[in-house]
Amino acid sequence: MGKIKKIAVMTSGGDSPGMNAAIRSVVRACAYYRTECMGIYRGYQGLIEGDLVPFTARSVNNIIHKGGTILKSARSKDFRTKEGRQKAYENLKEHKVDALVVIGGDGSFTGGVVFNKEFNFPIIGIPGTIDNDISGTTHTIGYDTALNTAVEAIDKIRDTASSHNRLFFVEVMGRDAGFIALNAGVGAGAEEILVPEENLGLERMLESLKKSRRTGKSSSIVVVSEGDKTGKNVFELADYVEKNLPEYEVRVSVLGHMQRGGSPTCFDRVLASRLGVKAVELLLDNQTNLMVGLQNNKVITTDLEKAIKGQDSIDLELLRVSDIMTT
Amino acid sequence: MGKIKKIAVMTSGGDSPGMNAAIRSVVRACAYYRTECMGIYRGYQGLIEGDLVPFTARSVNNIIHKGGTILKSARSKDFRTKEGRQKAYENLKEHKVDALVVIGGDGSFTGGVVFNKEFNFPIIGIPGTIDNDISGTTHTIGYDTALNTAVEAIDKIRDTASSHNRLFFVEVMGRDAGFIALNAGVGAGAEEILVPEENLGLERMLESLKKSRRTGKSSSIVVVSEGDKTGKNVFELADYVEKNLPEYEVRVSVLGHMQRGGSPTCFDRVLASRLGVKAVELLLDNQTNLMVGLQNNKVITTDLEKAIKGQDSIDLELLRVSDIMTT
Amino acid sequence: MGKIKKIAVMTSGGDSPGMNAAIRSVVRACAYYRTECMGIYRGYQGLIEGDLVPFTARSVNNIIHKGGTILKSARSKDFRTKEGRQKAYENLKEHKVDALVVIGGDGSFTGGVVFNKEFNFPIIGIPGTIDNDISGTTHTIGYDTALNTAVEAIDKIRDTASSHNRLFFVEVMGRDAGFIALNAGVGAGAEEILVPEENLGLERMLESLKKSRRTGKSSSIVVVSEGDKTGKNVFELADYVEKNLPEYEVRVSVLGHMQRGGSPTCFDRVLASRLGVKAVELLLDNQTNLMVGLQNNKVITTDLEKAIKGQDSIDLELLRVSDIMTT
Amino acid sequence: MGKIKKIAVMTSGGDSPGMNAAIRSVVRACAYYRTECMGIYRGYQGLIEGDLVPFTARSVNNIIHKGGTILKSARSKDFRTKEGRQKAYENLKEHKVDALVVIGGDGSFTGGVVFNKEFNFPIIGIPGTIDNDISGTTHTIGYDTALNTAVEAIDKIRDTASSHNRLFFVEVMGRDAGFIALNAGVGAGAEEILVPEENLGLERMLESLKKSRRTGKSSSIVVVSEGDKTGKNVFELADYVEKNLPEYEVRVSVLGHMQRGGSPTCFDRVLASRLGVKAVELLLDNQTNLMVGLQNNKVITTDLEKAIKGQDSIDLELLRVSDIMTT
Repeated sequence: MGKIKKIAVMTSGGDSPGMNAAIRSVVRACAYYRTECMGIYRGYQGLIEGDLVPFTARSVNNIIHKGGTILKSARSKDFRTKEGRQKAYENLKEHKVDALVVIGGDGSFTGGVVFNKEFNFPIIGIPGTIDNDISGTTHTIGYDTALNTAVEAIDKIRDTASSHNRLFFVEVMGRDAGFIALNAGVGAGAEEILVPEENLGLERMLESLKKSRRTGKSSSIVVVSEGDKTGKNVFELADYVEKNLPEYEVRVSVLGHMQRGGSPTCFDRVLASRLGVKAVELLLDNQTNLMVGLQNNKVITTDLEKAIKGQDSIDLELLRVSDIMTT
Repeated sequence: MGKIKKIAVMTSGGDSPGMNAAIRSVVRACAYYRTECMGIYRGYQGLIEGDLVPFTARSVNNIIHKGGTILKSARSKDFRTKEGRQKAYENLKEHKVDALVVIGGDGSFTGGVVFNKEFNFPIIGIPGTIDNDISGTTHTIGYDTALNTAVEAIDKIRDTASSHNRLFFVEVMGRDAGFIALNAGVGAGAEEILVPEENLGLERMLESLKKSRRTGKSSSIVVVSEGDKTGKNVFELADYVEKNLPEYEVRVSVLGHMQRGGSPTCFDRVLASRLGVKAVELLLDNQTNLMVGLQNNKVITTDLEKAIKGQDSIDLELLRVSDIMTT
Repeated sequence: MGKIKKIAVMTSGGDSPGMNAAIRSVVRACAYYRTECMGIYRGYQGLIEGDLVPFTARSVNNIIHKGGTILKSARSKDFRTKEGRQKAYENLKEHKVDALVVIGGDGSFTGGVVFNKEFNFPIIGIPGTIDNDISGTTHTIGYDTALNTAVEAIDKIRDTASSHNRLFFVEVMGRDAGFIALNAGVGAGAEEILVPEENLGLERMLESLKKSRRTGKSSSIVVVSEGDKTGKNVFELADYVEKNLPEYEVRVSVLGHMQRGGSPTCFDRVLASRLGVKAVELLLDNQTNLMVGLQNNKVITTDLEKAIKGQDSIDLELLRVSDIMTT
Repeated sequence: MGKIKKIAVMTSGGDSPGMNAAIRSVVRACAYYRTECMGIYRGYQGLIEGDLVPFTARSVNNIIHKGGTILKSARSKDFRTKEGRQKAYENLKEHKVDALVVIGGDGSFTGGVVFNKEFNFPIIGIPGTIDNDISGTTHTIGYDTALNTAVEAIDKIRDTASSHNRLFFVEVMGRDAGFIALNAGVGAGAEEILVPEENLGLERMLESLKKSRRTGKSSSIVVVSEGDKTGKNVFELADYVEKNLPEYEVRVSVLGHMQRGGSPTCFDRVLASRLGVKAVELLLDNQTNLMVGLQNNKVITTDLEKAIKGQDSIDLELLRVSDIMTT
């Protein structure tokens, strides 16, 4: 690898709050180290289509607090083809880009690893996804914000649940990982939490809800992950409970895409700022195929392939805490 | 009517943010005028079941900022029967209650009017509903909060919509009235707003969305009222657009019950405080069958029957403003 | 006056949340009516310095929800001189601007009236200030947002006040007008509210605080307007109370400039959108020297000079409501 | 130590958001393990005065999301005397309390250690303070919420700073530790951060501000910790800069006590829930003189004396990140 003189940055896959703070950090770190920088729009797809422009320290003024991503994001079918990746490589060469920072999740890193193998092109990954389902970091950028968005919404739902003695099923995001459901569920004081990792069974939920009513609770919240393992979606779950526990008046709320937006929390902004600097420093140090992440509040690096394969699992200690809390 | 020595207060129908501030105001005004006060739980149903207790100024400490209603709310089938109302009346007599303040909407006031006619029992209504569909007041308690909840959620959705160049259909509450859709739509800068009062036609929406894309907008929000007149629900609308405008990637978000909760805005707290005082003062002045409300920022009164019948209509000027804004 | 073909818009004086929504509305209304539009930076000062550029409908994308003003604001000494205003006029002529929309407060409108008299230049005012101290409108743009910012901050302060049984003096903005203090005070459930319009006396406050403690309240909030008439600033007030009521542990919090920022509420966004359209329509109808405003939820117009002179006064009914609430 | 049959819990010292979630967790964990529980009001002072009552699982309903502490807090002079502690011990014995959970900071734990030594009374500490200045845990309860409160306030201040091209000095809490200043400063994109741990010198700040203006930034935020080492308070700093950099219009904002209140973030609620359970489990396992805390997202324990002495220091890596961000 020669000396890195120009770095390009993109956001890829599902967007998450704090991506802008990460972009800003990469761009400012480049400026600090007197390295040129380009912003690539719409992830790998934009790269293939040559949609990249020079970015200076001023290009990222006043974005640290903004949700979404000014570089926009996309999923790219073309990048799965050899032709697509070849075109992407040519565009990078044409603009004299020496290295790539990819802010995204699992799928985006997989693409990056393939690309690196084919073209020996330096690449560093920054974990940005609300799902927190990436190994090698305790927190992905956007996860903390999504948790707070979910909890604030459930707090509002609880107000009306309590006023009417109702039971609410609230679906949160997380198709393959229960991080949001588990933490937002504990944070919101949910009666029951259903996650994809664990099939606790419908019987158990009925028992828990029966007990809850007996102990004098007048309203209840059940937090359900999109990808819950019971095999029922949130509306079917509601129907099932309404049939089996007719004493409950049941309602459903699907929080949906608002969980992907909003101004990032301080945690996500600081995390993004730290990881962006590290990503640039690694490249300038001629390192590649790493993901930057957080462990014990320190910035660390993980082999990019390990980060992809070793999907983090939720901490089942929290399910136990949740059980105890609903005593 | 004799001298009013004891007033009871209830919340009835769908709950709304600011109901607690209204309860507090009624209770404190009673204390101020050295009039006894009771709180009735679960609306007319609780009254029928004798679920009412004495309330002092201290019973309502530290609730002005809380969503929901500490008195809880309910819809009562029993109160639609003569027997139910008779029982309600007896419970009021038993507790020596001389007059009633009902915080709620349309249906709750209708019940109150019937009750007053049958038993000549003094009653004042305070408009509390997020839907703002009551005549005789420019604002109902909870409406302003619901608007802000909806707009903040749509702001978040816009972040992710912009990142991915997507079109979102966002459903807000308001089965019979488009107040929330119209105002939240203008406030959130929606591309298009669909309300129950007006059938603007699906063709028009398609035209507007086509134009929007032509003029360089990369993402769009369509705000839809629950009870929109197109005859399609929000998911069908999304399908329809996706079929007819394949250039759009369409998503749906149903904001749901979070719109009913949350800490009330300053506006709703002040409104509730003013209306609660006025309600008590009217009763102490031996007036009845009135609803208190706001006109031109002044507290006014309306005949309760008029308030029910003369449902307010949305201001179509705002639809025009919305059109101009999406130029 | 000839046909209006080009309109320029500026924000002037202290900034307020919703100014961006008003700019957007003026610009989009111009586009809708196929009238050219320019944005003037830094108010009258920028106009004098020739700091204005063409604005299209796309120039105001994605700003409706942003605090501050993209046109920036300033106070201009030069505009108080004949030479300054002459230069301003010449710059408008040079850019073929036919009319001016000024978003601001009292002082900005006064400048506008003088300018109109000297050069017969069409001008419309849009009331944008958090202080709400302008006649001819029940609400100025930014006022509702500032109220909510203040109330949310006081809600947080109350949490710690209650935990420690403390008395807090909270200073809010409003040098000459007590609108924010009065409404935020009622909204936050303050024990006492001190406004510039009314000198209720320190004795009265001591009495009220003594009573409050007797009746079992463990913490208290006193909301004080910057320009309170007691002749003491908020720190002196705190000292005074601590000396006279040693049973109280007193703290002070000055909310300060955060009240000027933040994402505008739905109310302020809708108000700004409505007023911006009306301002453009008035100019296109060859009207001038008017302020657009809100009365009874309808858009109305007031003579600009009247708006300046007839400063609105706070509604003392609210002080009475506040008294009753602290029973 | 005999079998633990009854545990009492208190909050002590400065309050912090999430203390209620911690109380709830301790109380519910007691219920889960069929151990009696009492709540002590106003910390050690309340204990000395015998202000404690039985708490059941239902005593802590609906408090997880509330700022402040339902047990109230206080600083106790009496507990610093032998007589005071003797009385405290007698009250615990009288109520047959076998062990104590203290939620608080440094000073509260010091009191607990002394008490344990004198009376061999089992005690576990839960770190609750917004300052994060306790060793043995990466996060104290309330710190994450305070960071977000500070950042949200600074975001608002930035809106008006940008509109007027102003420089703001914003003082945040943290008398002896710069955690809040450093993280909120990075999170808010501050131009400069002044912390008690490091005296970077006024000259350096002036240079940085000069450079900032040269590079085209129109507004700036300097975040200052209460206990900054420059020897100047925030108002003196502002004066100093205004004199030396007359091109800047300078304003000051002291965020103050609002940083102590507000609904806790999801992070603080989950942290509090986990630590509360662990505290109870340790006592039931006959352990004492430990503090529960978080390391690498796992619940761990530290010797209480070590937690007091080994004050955590801020991560100076973050100051470097801040420097790079302001390139």
